[in-house]
Amino acid sequence: MGRTSDARRKILDAARSLIEGRGYSALGVAEICKAAGVPKGSFYYFFESKEALALAVVDEHWAAQKRDWTRALTGDAEPLRRLRRLLEETEAGQLAGQRGCGTVAGCLFGNLALELSNQTEAVRGRLQEIFDAQVDMVESVVAEARERGDVRVTDTREAARAVVAQLEGQVMFAKLYNSTGRLSPLWQNCRALLGVTAAGVTAA
Amino acid sequence: MGRTSDARRKILDAARSLIEGRGYSALGVAEICKAAGVPKGSFYYFFESKEALALAVVDEHWAAQKRDWTRALTGDAEPLRRLRRLLEETEAGQLAGQRGCGTVAGCLFGNLALELSNQTEAVRGRLQEIFDAQVDMVESVVAEARERGDVRVTDTREAARAVVAQLEGQVMFAKLYNSTGRLSPLWQNCRALLGVTAAGVTAA
Repeated sequence: MGRTSDARRKILDAARSLIEGRGYSALGVAEICKAAGVPKGSFYYFFESKEALALAVVDEHWAAQKRDWTRALTGDAEPLRRLRRLLEETEAGQLAGQRGCGTVAGCLFGNLALELSNQTEAVRGRLQEIFDAQVDMVESVVAEARERGDVRVTDTREAARAVVAQLEGQVMFAKLYNSTGRLSPLWQNCRALLGVTAAGVTAA
Repeated sequence: MGRTSDARRKILDAARSLIEGRGYSALGVAEICKAAGVPKGSFYYFFESKEALALAVVDEHWAAQKRDWTRALTGDAEPLRRLRRLLEETEAGQLAGQRGCGTVAGCLFGNLALELSNQTEAVRGRLQEIFDAQVDMVESVVAEARERGDVRVTDTREAARAVVAQLEGQVMFAKLYNSTGRLSPLWQNCRALLGVTAAGVTAA
């Protein structure tokens, strides 16, 4: 039993790392099993298909990231302070990844969104749910900030989408230029997108 | 001679369409030649490698897009009016593509940036040049707008990067949700990012 879940864990870890490095489409099940050090036969014991594995990798990554986002975006601090913390932690996370493997890995969800949206509806649907949830979380903080008079936005939904789009766009450039410095202006840009007031600047 | 350049043209068109649909990594030379209707042997007469073909696809796409961007961003109209035109034309272009093939194709450069940045340095370098050129073009319009008092930004470079990042982020979501409506708030978001003044709003 211990050995069984070990093999599943190894397949998930190998797949995650290979997908981050080379994308999903070019990967084969044999290659994943080789990297995981498990016999190919055992793959289909744990996963119905390569697509099922991709969904499991996505789900596991989102479970971890959702915990991080929730921790950053909740608590007693002022709402804009929390949003700023999320952006700073994202930059720090990409920097840690770059130090570990030499390159900025970017956002697994963004990578897969561009690679797979028009290829697998199951992955597309799952990524839509994840980005919807991210926008929900940011929107809730923006709405709180608006209550306090810290931001001037009228449409909190569109504002939250703009923030998440800005994040994905800048993470794309951090990956392309292999430079986490691309993420440093994120808070400044979010301030502009949200129409942060003088009171909001002080609170953040 | 006519037939020769025909075969090169067919390979480029097939590759472009396959890369847009399925990405680059999963493609094989044999598949590209089959889709192009040319014998596999002729591929290496025109292209040294699959990477050389990808660079040719990227260069050709940029040559066309650069013409579009230059047309949109230059001329007698007020600078912000021109920037707005670029964003509106981007939305219209993605909509036309969606009507043609059923799905939003997104941005070829953004797709390849996320798929290939950490795999081929030649493609990474070329895409960096292209995004640098896009930022140059936007920055020049933003600087003009600042001269007129239409925007409040202090750092025109960072502002232009934020605009291009916003564009790439929203195009990602247009592709993921297969909805060009995701691009409709682009101008509104750029107004916020650039700190457009009352005079700027009128001019745009």
